[in-house]
This record gives sequence, structure tokens and C-alpha cells, in this order.
Amino acid sequence: MVNRIFTIFVLIGVPLSIAGSLMHWPSVLMFVVYCLTIIALAGFMGRATESLAIVAGPRIGGLLNATFGNAVELIISIFALKAGLVGVVLASLTGSVVGNLLLVAGLSFFIGGLKYKRQEFNIYDARHNSGLLIFAVIVAFVIPEVFTTEMDSAGTISLSVGISIILIILYLAALFFKLVTHRGVYQQKTDEVEVHEEPEWKKGKAIAILLLATVAVAYVSENLVHTFETVGERFGWSELFIGVIIVAIVGNAAEHASAVLMAYKNKMNIAVEIAVGSTLQVAMFVAPLLVLISLLFTEKMPLVFTLPELISMATAVFLTISVTNDGDTNWFEGATLLAAYIIIGIGFYLLPG
Amino acid sequence: MVNRIFTIFVLIGVPLSIAGSLMHWPSVLMFVVYCLTIIALAGFMGRATESLAIVAGPRIGGLLNATFGNAVELIISIFALKAGLVGVVLASLTGSVVGNLLLVAGLSFFIGGLKYKRQEFNIYDARHNSGLLIFAVIVAFVIPEVFTTEMDSAGTISLSVGISIILIILYLAALFFKLVTHRGVYQQKTDEVEVHEEPEWKKGKAIAILLLATVAVAYVSENLVHTFETVGERFGWSELFIGVIIVAIVGNAAEHASAVLMAYKNKMNIAVEIAVGSTLQVAMFVAPLLVLISLLFTEKMPLVFTLPELISMATAVFLTISVTNDGDTNWFEGATLLAAYIIIGIGFYLLPG
Amino acid sequence: MVNRIFTIFVLIGVPLSIAGSLMHWPSVLMFVVYCLTIIALAGFMGRATESLAIVAGPRIGGLLNATFGNAVELIISIFALKAGLVGVVLASLTGSVVGNLLLVAGLSFFIGGLKYKRQEFNIYDARHNSGLLIFAVIVAFVIPEVFTTEMDSAGTISLSVGISIILIILYLAALFFKLVTHRGVYQQKTDEVEVHEEPEWKKGKAIAILLLATVAVAYVSENLVHTFETVGERFGWSELFIGVIIVAIVGNAAEHASAVLMAYKNKMNIAVEIAVGSTLQVAMFVAPLLVLISLLFTEKMPLVFTLPELISMATAVFLTISVTNDGDTNWFEGATLLAAYIIIGIGFYLLPG
Repeated sequence: MVNRIFTIFVLIGVPLSIAGSLMHWPSVLMFVVYCLTIIALAGFMGRATESLAIVAGPRIGGLLNATFGNAVELIISIFALKAGLVGVVLASLTGSVVGNLLLVAGLSFFIGGLKYKRQEFNIYDARHNSGLLIFAVIVAFVIPEVFTTEMDSAGTISLSVGISIILIILYLAALFFKLVTHRGVYQQKTDEVEVHEEPEWKKGKAIAILLLATVAVAYVSENLVHTFETVGERFGWSELFIGVIIVAIVGNAAEHASAVLMAYKNKMNIAVEIAVGSTLQVAMFVAPLLVLISLLFTEKMPLVFTLPELISMATAVFLTISVTNDGDTNWFEGATLLAAYIIIGIGFYLLPG
Repeated sequence: MVNRIFTIFVLIGVPLSIAGSLMHWPSVLMFVVYCLTIIALAGFMGRATESLAIVAGPRIGGLLNATFGNAVELIISIFALKAGLVGVVLASLTGSVVGNLLLVAGLSFFIGGLKYKRQEFNIYDARHNSGLLIFAVIVAFVIPEVFTTEMDSAGTISLSVGISIILIILYLAALFFKLVTHRGVYQQKTDEVEVHEEPEWKKGKAIAILLLATVAVAYVSENLVHTFETVGERFGWSELFIGVIIVAIVGNAAEHASAVLMAYKNKMNIAVEIAVGSTLQVAMFVAPLLVLISLLFTEKMPLVFTLPELISMATAVFLTISVTNDGDTNWFEGATLLAAYIIIGIGFYLLPG
Repeated sequence: MVNRIFTIFVLIGVPLSIAGSLMHWPSVLMFVVYCLTIIALAGFMGRATESLAIVAGPRIGGLLNATFGNAVELIISIFALKAGLVGVVLASLTGSVVGNLLLVAGLSFFIGGLKYKRQEFNIYDARHNSGLLIFAVIVAFVIPEVFTTEMDSAGTISLSVGISIILIILYLAALFFKLVTHRGVYQQKTDEVEVHEEPEWKKGKAIAILLLATVAVAYVSENLVHTFETVGERFGWSELFIGVIIVAIVGNAAEHASAVLMAYKNKMNIAVEIAVGSTLQVAMFVAPLLVLISLLFTEKMPLVFTLPELISMATAVFLTISVTNDGDTNWFEGATLLAAYIIIGIGFYLLPG
């Protein structure tokens, strides 16, 4: 059902996007069209990646998911960097981290908790992820914030590049740890039987769809980025609010849907993996990659967030760890995360642009 | 014994307070009289609430305790707000959080630990409370601190009101979770047998005493608030020190006594519930309620603490969570909390006014 | 083998140090000689302390280790204080905390993890240490940082002295707890059999070596401190970088070696005890002692670090706790700690002097 809606959105949205951008239709209208089209295209990319992952087996599949999982966000961000919108990119990275930890996980725990009194997930994975969240957000993002206040821009970029390389290396090491050296070592006995899955699409078709959808996302994203200014002025939204709340929700809509669905089916390991795994991918792979890619453009992106952005991510990390570290959730823990998301959302909404 | 002393204090203290305030006796003397009288009255309110809670059954009783538990503090604060002493109110909220987490819990663990080598309490409750402490102090108090530095006062009040409403909703949700949907779900097998309790006072008498004591506390509090300036000048105490240390100790004296008593009887679940539960009540109910009430007065209270206040609460939260999260205490853990309280106390004492 | 190298280094290093300092050989050359000599002498002091500890029994032995474990660092710091280098001392304390938590523990977990898939250690000790790390770094170091921004220097020193006294008292209380009141209470059943150990040296010889090595360390340290300025200028290193990275590595080299060795032998309890125990000793005993000792010199040392130093220690504490709190390590957790150390190292390297 959702898939059929996504198909219709793509079939209507892509031509509309092309027509609208060529004929300069009103920005606010096109902003809505672009957003919906990207969400639908992201759905296709997700299904194509899933199919390829099943064909390729667990190791390469895990790698594929880890690489393409945030492809949409990466593409939007590259075009925003090209347009010199460094502030929007940092804001949307913030929005992804905060949104995945509080909104996606929060909704999953809450909706799942309405159906089940207690839901459990692998406590080893939760602790492994906690360590990485602390490493990425509390160490790798906080250190440049504090150290660069006394540095010139050359020092700031050097530190950002250095930290970015280390983040990517540790991200790859984490994949190696999970998929190779310690595969299954920290498994809990679980009722979720791993069934042999059939891919939705054959290899050739999946690759073709992945390529086509990626090209389409790239085209639409480039146009989307140029509507931000007009939309911001019209609704009184700051660049920061657009980045943290709007771009982040558009870029992660597909994950939101599937995480909540998994929680509703009581497959909490997958729901948590989507929410927290996606956060780690953004923080340890997408963000540092964008820092390195920005070296190719005139305006370089340092790994230095605004203080409200950094504090939002840091407090979200502490709250998520505190809630998930016992490997057990219920509706109230979901409500707590959602309440934190609303508080941060109000904060960014009221922040002057 | 304690009850008899409290009775004597009330019988002498209330008339003395009335006489002193009418005849303008010296402020420093009256400051002491007011403080002792309030502590004694708080004891009566606690016993009346307890009796009503037993009569009303666990659900309504839990609600009663949750609402009237910090009534004294709420009353003092409302009069301080009316007198425009926003700084003192924020300071006394800080003092309640820090005092309950470090002084009350610290004394309980220390005294209890002198008698028992290890004392245990429900680990699920500890984790549930940890999540709420992080939510209230690290998210809901830290976000406005950082975001409002760039806001005008209208934005600051909007954000404060928004966060306050969310805090109160989540506090009520937490009660609903604990008393209704998940009552007994996270129970550990425990040696503490729940005996059928007899209320100390009958329903009518309890209500009468609760009302009378509340009126008396209100009268004395209003007078107490006006002695702060003179007392501060006389002893060289800053408004901040009076709020954080003095008002907080007076407002929470009753809880201190009963938490330590429970720890001494090895009823650690109750001792922890008093210390941490009271903190959560202050942070998630009393503080936001005062923000909303302050809208009625000329000087509005934002949910923005001074940096020393915020850092004191945040570090107290991290320390308490670290110490209590294993559901096991001993004298040394109590000593650690007490040492932290002394450090923070010295800090506020030395802070220029 | 290592012992023989150390013997050679001492036999060559001490005369070279004396000759070089008398004949004013080039500072950079002497800097290297002094560093290597101190590392070798620290090895002798460690072995002498170890021998005495075995002779003296577990209680006095534990006390000896706790007192002399960071003697080298204490001695270097006293001479640096005497030379007015307060900034270098605070930096080297930071370097010890960060280095022990991230470099020593990181290398131990990583090297040990290459040999063993999972390594376990006492989870009670880990939690006990977590509480103390939060107390020392997050409470006792953060409070003066925030509170003294509004204080004059007299207030700053008062607060520093007050906190230092409390830190030392709690450190002694922790020893009393561990060696007397709760000895063995939190023991896990473990495969590490406590074998009856033979001391390497007899009591008299051990005391003689300890005294001689201490005198030699003192002599070399005084000279080392005076090479910092020239070395800094020559290599473009800031005082901060020398303190945080160089002095800290020299002062803790002996611990590094033995912690890694213990991890390689799968004696994780000892490896963790060296890394975290040494951190606590620095934070709760050496640092406050230096604050008190500095009162004897013209330039007093407040317990106020620079913001980069404080944030480095605080983030290192949060990461270490997150990684060690489950009582289980692997190569990836070691890699995470090492990555954090490199990030902080780059930060201090790029920080302008």
C-alpha cells in the first residue's frame, strides 16, 4: 500500500519537479513538491538497497546498507554545500542526529509500547552503540567546538579534517568488528527467527532502480536547496529551523516509517538498529565525509556546530543512552524521547535566524 | 518524640511569628523563628498527607503525595515571586534539586551504610528515575539556558512556558505510567512486606490539619521572604546562597528526616523514592508550575538558571545516576554524594552576591 | 629484558644528566636524555614499591602503591610549580587523566583484544571507579571552572583549597573503604588465582633503591623543567602541548608498559586498576596536593583548568565510563579510546600557545 503510494508520488512528482523548476513555479509550492518527491524516491532507494543486500549476503549487505542508508541526505547536503549553505548542512546533520535519536526512536518505543507492555532488544548492541554515540557526539563534535574558539580558520579546518578522517576510520573499524571479527559474538538468545529472505527485485533491476532514483534525488535536491531562502522568508523560519527540522524529516522519512513499523511488529532489535544505527552513520560517516567533500568547494565546512546544535545533540545522546541502556522499552520511555524532541523543536523554532 | 517536638514548635512558633511580624521584631531573630516554624508545620502537613494517602488507596494516595509533597516549597516560592524575588526562587529550586540528590540521598546512604554493609533497592525504579533526571535537568533545563542567550525576553518566556507545559504533561504521564498502566510491572521480589497500614488521623481531621497548616505556612512564608535582604546583609550571604542552601534546607527538612530514618531501617526503596522522587517533583512539577504562576505577576520567571546553578544541578544528576544505577549503596557512596554537596555549598558561599 | 634496558638507561642516563646540566649541553638533546632517564628511574621506583608492598601485606601495600604510584609526576610537578610554570602543571595533570583513561586503557584493551575475543574484569570495581571519576572530574573540576569566572583571585584560591581538602579526604576514605571496611565484599568469582608472591628485593634494598631513585628523579626533573621553553620554541610546541602530551607520557610511561603487559596476559582487573586507579590517584590526590603545596610558593595554583583541558578530561571520563561499565572489553573498545586520544592530541597540537 505504502509502496503503491510511493510509486504514484514518484510518477507524478518527478515530472512535476522538472516542469516546475524549468517554468519557475512559485518556490513554496515547489518546496512541497520537491520534499514529497524525495521522500518517495528515498522509499525506492531503500527497497533497491534492501534487495541488493539480500542478494549479496550479510557482510556485503551490511556494508551496502551502511553506505546507501543515508544516501539521500548525503546528496541533498552536497548540493547545499555547492550552493555555499554550510549552515544548512550542519543544521540538517544536527536534525538527523536529534531526529533519529528522539523522534524515530521515540515514536517506535511509544507506538510499540501501546501494543506491548515491555519490549526488549539486544543489550550488548545497545551498549556498543552507547559507546559510539559518546565517541562521535560527545568527543568528536565537542572537542572542535571548544578548541577552535582560539584557532584561526586554517587551524579549524585542519582539526576538522583530522577528526573527520579518524571518525571514518573508526566507522569502518566498527563495521569490520560487527560483520567480521565479532559477528554473532554478542548475540542474545532471541525469539526472532532469521528467515531466509527473498529479494523483492533481481540484482539487475535493483541496481537500475538504485541508479535512476539516485539521479532523480540528485536533480530534485539541487532544486530543493534553492527554495530554502524564499520558504524561510515566507514562513518566518530561520535557516537553522529549516535545516534541523524540515530537511532532517524529509531526509529521514523512510527510516521513520520502517522503524515504527518494526516496533509495531515487536522487532525491537531492528527498530533500534534503524534509529541508532542511522544516527551513527550520520555522525561517523556522512558528517565527516561532507567535511572532506567541502574541501573541493570554495566554502569549506568545519566540523563546528552552533552551540544550540551541539547542546541539542549532546543532550539527546545522554537521554537516549539513559533510556536504552537497559535493553527494555515501554510507552513512557517513548513519550520521554518525544517530549525532548518537542522541547528542542520549540527551541529552534523560537531561535532568531 | 520528633512529633512532640514539632507540636511544641508549632504551638510556640505560630503565635511568635504573628507577634513578631506585627511588632517588627529584628529580622534576623524572626528569620530563625520563621524557619523553625515552617519546618515544624511541614511535619504536620506530611503526616496529614500520609494519613489521607492511606485512606484514599495507593493510586489517589500516590497522587496526593506527588502533589502535596513539595507544597511548602511551592508556597514559599509563590510569595517570593509575588515579592519579585525571581532569583531567590530559581536558587531555591536549584537547592532542592541539589539538596535532595546529594544531601538527602547522601545522608541516607551514609547513615544506612554505617549499619548495613550493602543496601539494595529496586534497580528498575533507579533506571526509570535516571531517565527522568536526564530529561528534566539535562534536556529541559539546559536547552533554555543555551537557546535563550540569543533570544529577547519575549522569546525567552515563550520557550520557558512551552517547556514548562511539556514538563508537567510528562510528569502526569509518569504518574499514570507508575500508578496505572505499569503498576507492579517492574517489581523486584523484595523482603519488604507491604503491611496494611492504619492512618494516623481520620479523614476529616487530616483534611482539617492539612488546611490549617497550609494557611499557617503561607502566612509565615510571606513574612520569611521579606527577611532575606536583611539577613543576607548581616551575614554576608548572597541572595543565591540563601536560596540554594538556606531556603532549600528549610523547605525540605521534613523529607531529609524521613529519608534518613528509612535508610536506617534498611527500607532503601522508600529512602531513594523520597530523595529522587522529590527531586523529580521539584524539577518536573514545582518549577514549571512556578513559571506558569509567575505569568500572573509583574515579574515573569523564565526557566533560565544562572550558570553556576545549572552546572550544580547537572553535575549532581550525573553523580547521582552513576552512584545509584546499580541499585546498591554503601557508606562510601553516601560520603561521595555528601562531599559533592559540600563542594557545591562552598562554591555558592564564595560566589559574590 | 625490559628491566635490563632500564638498568642500562639509568647507569648511562644519570651521569649524562649531571654532566649535561653542569656543562650546559643543548637543551633539546638534554630534554631527550632527561625524559629517558626519568622513564627508566620510574621503572626502578615501581619495582621497589612493588617489593615493599608484597612485604608489607595487602593493606599497607595498597597504601604504598596509592602513595608512590604517581611519585614521579608529583616530583616533576613540584619543580615546575617552583619555577612558576602553573600552566604546565595543570596541563600535565590533564595529560595524566586523559592519557591514563584513553591511551593506557585504550592500548591495553586493543592489544589484549587482538589476542582474546572478549576480556572481562570486575564490574563492581568498574562502577565504583565510575562514581569516583564523575565525582573528581565532573563535580570537583567543573564546579571551580564555572564558579570562579565571577570570583576574584582570593575567592578562587579559597574555593580551590576547599575542594582540594575534600578531594584528599574522599581519596583516603576510598582507600579505607577498599582496604578495610569493604575488602573483598564486592569480589566476583574469578579465575585469576592470587598466588603467594615473592618480593623481587628485600625490604632494606627496596627502601634504599626507592630513596636513591627518588632523589635522582628529583634532580633530573628540576633540570627537565627548565628545558621546556627552548624545546617548545624549537619544535613549535605550545606549553600546553608539552604538558598534556609530552610530560604526561614521560610521567606515566612505566604504567603504560605494565598495563599493556597485564592485558596481554588477560589479567584485565590489574590492567584496568592501573589505568583507572592511576587516573583517580592523579585527580583525587596528586592534583589537590599540588594545589596545597603551591601555597608555599609565590605563584599559587588554583584548581582551574583551561576550557580545552577540562572538556578533554570530561569527555574522556564519559567515554571511558561508557566503554568500561559493562565489565567487558574487546579490540574495538580499545580502538575507540585510542581514536579519542588522537583527536584530543591533534586538538592540543593545533591549539595556539
